[in-house]
Amino acid sequence: MNYWIKPQPLDFNVEHPFFLCVLSNTDTAKIPGISAAGRSPDVIDYTPAGDAELVTLGRTICKSEPPMTPAGSPTPAVITRAALQLTKIPFLFINSGLRVIPKIPLLDVGAKPGGDIRTAKGVLDVGLIYENSVELGRQIKRLSDCVIIGESVPAGTTTAMCVLKALGINARVSSSYPENPLNIKEQTVEEALSNKGISFGDLKDDPMRAIEYFGDPMMPCVCGLVKGLGDTTSVLAGGTQMMAVLALIKHIGINSDVSIATTKFVAEDKTASFLETVSDLGFKSYISDPGFNLSKNPGLRMYESGDVKEGVGAGGGMFAAGIMGIGQDELRDQVELICDQVF
Amino acid sequence: MNYWIKPQPLDFNVEHPFFLCVLSNTDTAKIPGISAAGRSPDVIDYTPAGDAELVTLGRTICKSEPPMTPAGSPTPAVITRAALQLTKIPFLFINSGLRVIPKIPLLDVGAKPGGDIRTAKGVLDVGLIYENSVELGRQIKRLSDCVIIGESVPAGTTTAMCVLKALGINARVSSSYPENPLNIKEQTVEEALSNKGISFGDLKDDPMRAIEYFGDPMMPCVCGLVKGLGDTTSVLAGGTQMMAVLALIKHIGINSDVSIATTKFVAEDKTASFLETVSDLGFKSYISDPGFNLSKNPGLRMYESGDVKEGVGAGGGMFAAGIMGIGQDELRDQVELICDQVF
Repeated sequence: MNYWIKPQPLDFNVEHPFFLCVLSNTDTAKIPGISAAGRSPDVIDYTPAGDAELVTLGRTICKSEPPMTPAGSPTPAVITRAALQLTKIPFLFINSGLRVIPKIPLLDVGAKPGGDIRTAKGVLDVGLIYENSVELGRQIKRLSDCVIIGESVPAGTTTAMCVLKALGINARVSSSYPENPLNIKEQTVEEALSNKGISFGDLKDDPMRAIEYFGDPMMPCVCGLVKGLGDTTSVLAGGTQMMAVLALIKHIGINSDVSIATTKFVAEDKTASFLETVSDLGFKSYISDPGFNLSKNPGLRMYESGDVKEGVGAGGGMFAAGIMGIGQDELRDQVELICDQVF
Repeated sequence: MNYWIKPQPLDFNVEHPFFLCVLSNTDTAKIPGISAAGRSPDVIDYTPAGDAELVTLGRTICKSEPPMTPAGSPTPAVITRAALQLTKIPFLFINSGLRVIPKIPLLDVGAKPGGDIRTAKGVLDVGLIYENSVELGRQIKRLSDCVIIGESVPAGTTTAMCVLKALGINARVSSSYPENPLNIKEQTVEEALSNKGISFGDLKDDPMRAIEYFGDPMMPCVCGLVKGLGDTTSVLAGGTQMMAVLALIKHIGINSDVSIATTKFVAEDKTASFLETVSDLGFKSYISDPGFNLSKNPGLRMYESGDVKEGVGAGGGMFAAGIMGIGQDELRDQVELICDQVF
């Protein structure tokens, strides 16, 4: 059955919403077959920058072709752009370790691109990224009463899986592929853990080390933002990558007003444990359905069979649209319009 | 006679103020004797980063010694920090062409450090910086109803002088030295103009070219921000550098709600023409006096004899403090406290 946002976010009374999206590149994303966040492996590095340009400008500059999956589904940035256009919510993208820099204004927390977790540290300068993001959150706290935080980090579900294992959390992550390449991910995670001599749960009391060894640079940025925002409402906009960030927030001991919003494509992914894990961690989740089964756009309809699923804060963008009074049909119409313009 | 803010800013009814400060390095600043924004020429590149760290963190990281003039006067960042602490106004620094990156969160408009205007372009990618800043201004417009925009750009009065000449404006610029090194500045400007074959007023109809040839990367950033902010109030926080930006805004044809706020040290500088030129350009100016003649701190008292004068949005910071109900004594006490902690 179709729904728009579930449960209805009745307790959100927002006057000054603000949308942030954290962008990172990692060498983990270069492992063949690990991510569908790009038409082919050699363009995956362009995906976060392309997403940010698409949301901001309605076109990509860093690369002529906009981000899409190998099967040809459009990047979820089209959903985010639609939501931000309809709601007029102010937004900024955060460079948290980009290799390809988009031609738009950015926030910057001083991160370098992430390493390949099998053979290197996942994140360099994790303390600096975290502290800069705490400070950024403190400033934004004075400007906004509800901050929605998305991400675009190719291969981010693999770093999420590895961090969750290091923290000792039994959870299953999603994928931008219709068929979750779990064997590649598990092999990568096994290798990463064993090369650093870490077993399941070894880092449950050292979450910063878990990020440094096995995470990606988006993670300390989002954790820091949520810390800095304190009792100002923040909503993590993403699937199992943001679920891993919630686990980190809990293990770091950050006491902030934070929940999570994602798409039904993640929530209904049977290879993942989104709803169960978020609930076990003690956080609220909101699920949005753009009703793409009704779309005339074949690329969007492929979302219904599991292509893409989430990213660029798409689920949180729809959530924000919902609390600002935008309906499912209006959102989907706008997404289709953007697809016609961009693809 | 002492005053605090003149004229009284009675028409400012501000609910959500936001303070920005634009940071740039240039090769023009490396000309010996051109700028006192650093204890010696080899540390001038650290001044914008050090200023930003001092305002944000209350200490400098990029260099152990905080920015000061050769005579030992503290950077005006101490005034800005005091104003932001007392008012709790949210603030962010913008990287618009830094060579030394401070260890704080930053906004970034994609600029490279500026060249030596005698032998190179003052600003590379002027169009990109401007467009990114317009976009940034558009987003900030939805978050704030009054944006105060300062700068920290060593040797910025020389690029200001050169841009004013190219635009055909008879105006005199100030200096961070007690004795304005006008001969060095004029020689630099003469050389820059003649090497590019430009005479007084030649670029009055091409202000972007004036920035590209003779300006610094702060200029297209501030112009773009003001353009993007549109009818949202913006206050340029600075002396004759921001006066030159007002000239550019006028020549570009930007119709925004913009005025300028500076210190009495700039307004009373007889080598400069701040009040007269701002008025001729058709903009309102506000002058703040921290009453440093009453200070027990010898470095601050040196401001009274013309050391430093302005920078890091100090004049605009005091202006903001004034409209938020902070008095002169309270501001000065806080500045002295910060000086005791930092110097």
